[in-house]
Amino acid sequence: MKETNGIFLKNCWYVAAWDHELIDGRKLARTILEKPVVLYKGESGQVVALDDRCCHRGAPLSMGRVEGDDIRCMYHGMKFAPSGKCIQIPGQEQIPPKLGVVSYPVVEKDHLVWIWMGEAARADPALIIDYPPLRDPAWRGLPGYMHYDANWLFIVDNLSDFAHLAFVHTHTLGGSEEYAYKTKPVQIERLARGFRVERWHENADAPPYHKKVIADKAAKVDRRNIGHMHIPGIFFLETTFAPAGGGAKRGDLTGARQYRNCQFMTPETRRTTHFFWNYLHDFDLDNPNIALSLRDSMIEGFNEDKALIEAQQKLLDADPDFKLLAIAADAPLSHFRWTLNKLIAEEQAPMAAAA
Amino acid sequence: MKETNGIFLKNCWYVAAWDHELIDGRKLARTILEKPVVLYKGESGQVVALDDRCCHRGAPLSMGRVEGDDIRCMYHGMKFAPSGKCIQIPGQEQIPPKLGVVSYPVVEKDHLVWIWMGEAARADPALIIDYPPLRDPAWRGLPGYMHYDANWLFIVDNLSDFAHLAFVHTHTLGGSEEYAYKTKPVQIERLARGFRVERWHENADAPPYHKKVIADKAAKVDRRNIGHMHIPGIFFLETTFAPAGGGAKRGDLTGARQYRNCQFMTPETRRTTHFFWNYLHDFDLDNPNIALSLRDSMIEGFNEDKALIEAQQKLLDADPDFKLLAIAADAPLSHFRWTLNKLIAEEQAPMAAAA
Amino acid sequence: MKETNGIFLKNCWYVAAWDHELIDGRKLARTILEKPVVLYKGESGQVVALDDRCCHRGAPLSMGRVEGDDIRCMYHGMKFAPSGKCIQIPGQEQIPPKLGVVSYPVVEKDHLVWIWMGEAARADPALIIDYPPLRDPAWRGLPGYMHYDANWLFIVDNLSDFAHLAFVHTHTLGGSEEYAYKTKPVQIERLARGFRVERWHENADAPPYHKKVIADKAAKVDRRNIGHMHIPGIFFLETTFAPAGGGAKRGDLTGARQYRNCQFMTPETRRTTHFFWNYLHDFDLDNPNIALSLRDSMIEGFNEDKALIEAQQKLLDADPDFKLLAIAADAPLSHFRWTLNKLIAEEQAPMAAAA
Repeated sequence: MKETNGIFLKNCWYVAAWDHELIDGRKLARTILEKPVVLYKGESGQVVALDDRCCHRGAPLSMGRVEGDDIRCMYHGMKFAPSGKCIQIPGQEQIPPKLGVVSYPVVEKDHLVWIWMGEAARADPALIIDYPPLRDPAWRGLPGYMHYDANWLFIVDNLSDFAHLAFVHTHTLGGSEEYAYKTKPVQIERLARGFRVERWHENADAPPYHKKVIADKAAKVDRRNIGHMHIPGIFFLETTFAPAGGGAKRGDLTGARQYRNCQFMTPETRRTTHFFWNYLHDFDLDNPNIALSLRDSMIEGFNEDKALIEAQQKLLDADPDFKLLAIAADAPLSHFRWTLNKLIAEEQAPMAAAA
Repeated sequence: MKETNGIFLKNCWYVAAWDHELIDGRKLARTILEKPVVLYKGESGQVVALDDRCCHRGAPLSMGRVEGDDIRCMYHGMKFAPSGKCIQIPGQEQIPPKLGVVSYPVVEKDHLVWIWMGEAARADPALIIDYPPLRDPAWRGLPGYMHYDANWLFIVDNLSDFAHLAFVHTHTLGGSEEYAYKTKPVQIERLARGFRVERWHENADAPPYHKKVIADKAAKVDRRNIGHMHIPGIFFLETTFAPAGGGAKRGDLTGARQYRNCQFMTPETRRTTHFFWNYLHDFDLDNPNIALSLRDSMIEGFNEDKALIEAQQKLLDADPDFKLLAIAADAPLSHFRWTLNKLIAEEQAPMAAAA
Repeated sequence: MKETNGIFLKNCWYVAAWDHELIDGRKLARTILEKPVVLYKGESGQVVALDDRCCHRGAPLSMGRVEGDDIRCMYHGMKFAPSGKCIQIPGQEQIPPKLGVVSYPVVEKDHLVWIWMGEAARADPALIIDYPPLRDPAWRGLPGYMHYDANWLFIVDNLSDFAHLAFVHTHTLGGSEEYAYKTKPVQIERLARGFRVERWHENADAPPYHKKVIADKAAKVDRRNIGHMHIPGIFFLETTFAPAGGGAKRGDLTGARQYRNCQFMTPETRRTTHFFWNYLHDFDLDNPNIALSLRDSMIEGFNEDKALIEAQQKLLDADPDFKLLAIAADAPLSHFRWTLNKLIAEEQAPMAAAA
């Protein structure tokens, strides 16, 4: 595990924020891949991401003032354009042309603010993974954020094996321990930049979080989970609850209720993670309590994960040499780490060659 | 000091817990010699001590569930026997025979749970130091626990020179500063694995903690303290208060009141210590308030030590090169550290040879 | 920046305390240049500064007891003279002549306690920088203390460029952003052990802190700031508010109100600083509310600096390789660091040669 937990893939898009975090002129100070970043939406509506350290004395620009699309450091008054270039020094006429701070490419799309921490020239917006439910009115949900005191890969691991639903989330998101014994991934697909898993639980009780938002709480369901994990740490989960034995396995989704869940793990540091999510539903769209109930259920469930994952991090910190042993269910997890390692090695090879 | 504070003797018994800490199915997470350990009493009454990290993903077993004498990790449901062997993986039929976690030898005896952190094959229960007052109905006391933010040897040092009673504990356990000037150890015996000291204070006022539990508070006493310190950090103190001039020094204990005090220092880490104790008395055994008063007095006194000892640790942390200078009274302390160093060196020699 | 932030100049006087911190027998534990020091005023009135670690077992002498001009460690009762020499060991007749703790030269002068952390033989009281307003009845003020979680040089930097008044202290000590644009140092003098800067702001509004203590709040002023920075981190500021256009620039101070401000930055550690100050005024001396208002204004303003400076330290800690870029206004700052580096190099050369 040690070989990847401490290194980040840089040339890829990470989620930096939900768009609502930048309303009303807020200067959001957020560390991403161990770099301090200030994010703000300028007067023109453009989102700007700059190194959160004035190039002069290192004061945080997030303690500064937004002026138009620019930001002024409120230590000695130096002003920076969205490009990072210094455009004013109070009391000094000449500005050295190279004076400025790092500016990071950012793209706002479907309520997410994406950031590129690597080489700016390679920041192609077309590489941003599309997630239509975030803009599709057929789906409704509430954006969430949680901070983890743990390496982001521990969260990726967690999502790589649904068996944990049975034990960590028995009384919230899982429903029964049976889930771990009776169901197995029917398919594991190894992808170039991630994996896809599919798992069925037939003729089961609805799990508590789903029961809370449906009328017939006693009805048995056929439950299908399809998970997609993408580099660098993006997870999409498609969940279907269909009437038990009603033909869902053959593609007949009559009477089914569906969820679309996206989760974005962005490393803050080697030991801490920004965790963004939305859990969207496709039914009773005019009832706002559905989304509120699902949001609360997710927070309850994610806190169960968080307690366990942060304990893992503490144990690893106390003894970095502890060796973990894989079981059969770790195939997706192992593939993801192998893939990530490969991409990181490729990214670093030119640097090593140049050094 | 630096040469021992950071290394532990492993092949010996340490106190891991009082037995009452494991009642009602409690899974006790306790770090011992820098290893995370989970302790629990199984259905059969057997005490089990396992590495508190599931071998699969490092989740704490102390967040798991006791089933019979086994424990189940509540991340992905793997179950472990008291031997540490993995005996179930939900959703996987074959279990690799070597899959499992470290199991530590444990022995429950006279309300103490002892643990062996070294080579399991050498864990002979006959090596456990016997302390009869803990099971003898002629003695009554209450078990205590305290956590120190300091290396355990600072506590051993503290107990190695009773002169500190005069200054640290003047108004609690000591009684007067005179104790440091008028009394000296009458005997210091260097033992193969520790030392024995004996100190008399004749015709003295009873110290405050003793006054609280006796009727004639003004009577002068002849006070005798006999201390035994044992590797790795076990202290027994025999205290006698006899009527002043009544012949106690010649062996006549008529009218004397006695205490038996055991203290067990178990390293949690190089910088923190588990401290277990019981202060037992042999008089007014049907009055439970005696033991309660003595327990409160000890907590008061030990907190005086704790403030001082934790300050020592902080100062040492801030400047590890600070050199300490021995005085005459340090003979027992020096012998103990010399002995411990020797045993540690012997224990590590075969490892070094093999490496 | 890295080359100086971590090393201290030792052979010079630092402020250790205000004298009022030592009244009533207080034993002040204060870390200075990363050394634990205990300061106390003995019965004779003499201030004593000793290493705050008993030479025996490293217990803090600040937990001890002052006896006359001596101090007794309250662990095993060893007593130390102001020279640091051990003069009593309870229960031991012979005291090794070299047994003792480090004693630091200290001088009490004009309410300040100065300490010399370097070679005691070179501690010449004549080297203490004189600041007459602290003893002159024509000036009145209140002594202040603040603790910074930042390297002391960040505070020196802050004071080296008054432009920060415009942005950090607009609504407290500064008054307007115009200050940064319209005024420039009229003079920068490079001194052998520091610098002198002078800056005028003519026909300006009085800044908020000054308005609070004068009657005619609307009157325009000619404001002059003269700052002196001295090695190792001592700052004197002479501030004059004269009636606008009244001839102050030609030396006519009729109707002017003046302030004398001293600030002493003493490194606690590489990352933390003791900050002492007094802001003295020369008018309405019989009204104690003037000094109280100025003290409160300074605390308000210094807290603005503190938020910014502690943020700088955190950003530097997170990425020690971050490079700062100088602007024109940094000439005094650069000169100070260059001078300090030179003195530190000179001080360390003999040590390096001897090694």
